[in-house]
Amino acid sequence: MLKLVERMLAGELPALARLITLVEREAPQTPEVMKEIHPYLGKAHVVGVTGPPGGGKSTLVDRLTQVARGQGLSVGIIAVDPTSPFSGGAVLGDRIRMQRHYLDPGVFIRSMATRGSRGGLPRGVRGVIKLLDAFGKDLILVETVGVGQTELDIVETADTVVVVLVPEAGDAVQTLKAGLMEIASIFVVNKADLPGADRLALEIESMLRLSPADFEWRPPVVITQALNDIGVEEVYRAVEEHRQHLQASGELERRRLQQRREELWQRVEQRLQERLRWLLWAGGLASLTEKVASGELDPYSAAEMIEEKLSRSWPGGG
Amino acid sequence: MLKLVERMLAGELPALARLITLVEREAPQTPEVMKEIHPYLGKAHVVGVTGPPGGGKSTLVDRLTQVARGQGLSVGIIAVDPTSPFSGGAVLGDRIRMQRHYLDPGVFIRSMATRGSRGGLPRGVRGVIKLLDAFGKDLILVETVGVGQTELDIVETADTVVVVLVPEAGDAVQTLKAGLMEIASIFVVNKADLPGADRLALEIESMLRLSPADFEWRPPVVITQALNDIGVEEVYRAVEEHRQHLQASGELERRRLQQRREELWQRVEQRLQERLRWLLWAGGLASLTEKVASGELDPYSAAEMIEEKLSRSWPGGG
Repeated sequence: MLKLVERMLAGELPALARLITLVEREAPQTPEVMKEIHPYLGKAHVVGVTGPPGGGKSTLVDRLTQVARGQGLSVGIIAVDPTSPFSGGAVLGDRIRMQRHYLDPGVFIRSMATRGSRGGLPRGVRGVIKLLDAFGKDLILVETVGVGQTELDIVETADTVVVVLVPEAGDAVQTLKAGLMEIASIFVVNKADLPGADRLALEIESMLRLSPADFEWRPPVVITQALNDIGVEEVYRAVEEHRQHLQASGELERRRLQQRREELWQRVEQRLQERLRWLLWAGGLASLTEKVASGELDPYSAAEMIEEKLSRSWPGGG
Repeated sequence: MLKLVERMLAGELPALARLITLVEREAPQTPEVMKEIHPYLGKAHVVGVTGPPGGGKSTLVDRLTQVARGQGLSVGIIAVDPTSPFSGGAVLGDRIRMQRHYLDPGVFIRSMATRGSRGGLPRGVRGVIKLLDAFGKDLILVETVGVGQTELDIVETADTVVVVLVPEAGDAVQTLKAGLMEIASIFVVNKADLPGADRLALEIESMLRLSPADFEWRPPVVITQALNDIGVEEVYRAVEEHRQHLQASGELERRRLQQRREELWQRVEQRLQERLRWLLWAGGLASLTEKVASGELDPYSAAEMIEEKLSRSWPGGG
């Protein structure tokens, strides 16, 4: 057992922080850490909070944390910044806003940057969630800006997805059509002091009615003013109800199965790609690659030869 | 030897069209076709014409084709439409504009749609280029809208890249900074009757001067009005000079080597991924996958076991 993992499991915060840094950077120790913490996983409820920029997601996360702490739960927060952590004024504001939680040992906060221009969750995010889970966090809030690839990633990563919209964003319905509709477990219409909040809520409700009638879970629409602590407890209750629904319906278990399968697949693919590249570029197949490079052999024939060589001993698949 | 390939190599246009359709759709016959045409490849000069929408790329392609035909060259044109072929007014306009070439047996024109929202060249485009090459086309013009992934793809696919800009696009310099700068073999400032053409040309020149001084090839900046046939011959000459430079410097051969290596890699990767997915989902490794899905085994340990199993017989890499 790794010393650091042992100390983390015993509740030492510096050990947790150190492990997160390792996993986030995909350090060579990552597989060993992941194996060690495996028996301690699966207890945390992972909630994604997503939506267009400027919707007040950070404030909502802050207030949800407060409610959860009031219930005696310990909380982990992962704030995914689309560019780089702490680069913009908003993020700096959030840090100040969350200051009180920084001083609370029952709350662990981490910022991570999205990878590349494509968006998408940072590759290490699932590892960090696992560490927080193994550490004993009851609730893990993952805050992301909902654009493109990120949405798909968050629905594969979180148990419950809260989509936060604001009335002023005239194109909220467009946003929904562009993919946020399908991923939401709960809708929040925040900044309800702005005009149009009720109308937006009605629009969302009517779009939901157009969805297939045999919904196992009909996403509630909660109107909030997170900054003024209005409606936050209702969001919290909706999250809790969704969690109970997931458990009772068996959906939670189905999702976890699928997540683990996908994780295995990604890991196998990544490792084999690395080995394969090495084989083709510098290893035992480099001479074949050079025959293709020189034009002596066509890539399709070479690929077949390589496939045959590599998969000869594969179980039942040769 | 496949009958269709034989007929295509004999110069039959319907056979070429039929093969392109097969390859474009990645039909099961594709590998066989690619193997058959392999000995006939490498003679065509592939020119990518790219840049932001509305720059007059289609008109330039049309006029370059005219010049090339005047020199007795046969031409293939692949127009990559970012959404779907013939969906927009501009594309329809292009078809009318290129009407004369449609009637010329020395010109073969094909539209292809980009895949997905990520942009990027359609996966079949390299196969289509090869078919046109094997068919005996001297010049292959690939017209694309330069956004995101497409730029990276075009530089890996074309021998010469012509970047077309217009003065009215106030953010032309931004576009350059965003990645078109690095990929250009030749710059064209088109629609020079609009104000600001000279200034844009100067801006490009000054950006080029800031580039590393040991450039083997300094991209020329050509000012054109393609619609009025002004400057097109100069672009054509620049393309020809770039081709000669590529050959004399050995750069052409280096690029071809790299392209063939990359093609082999992609082919091997694609095939092994397919087999691997089958193995893990339904084949000889499915029981291991299920152990991971149920949580009995952690994904990292399972991935190592699978890797060990699969690569046991790999040449020099086990």
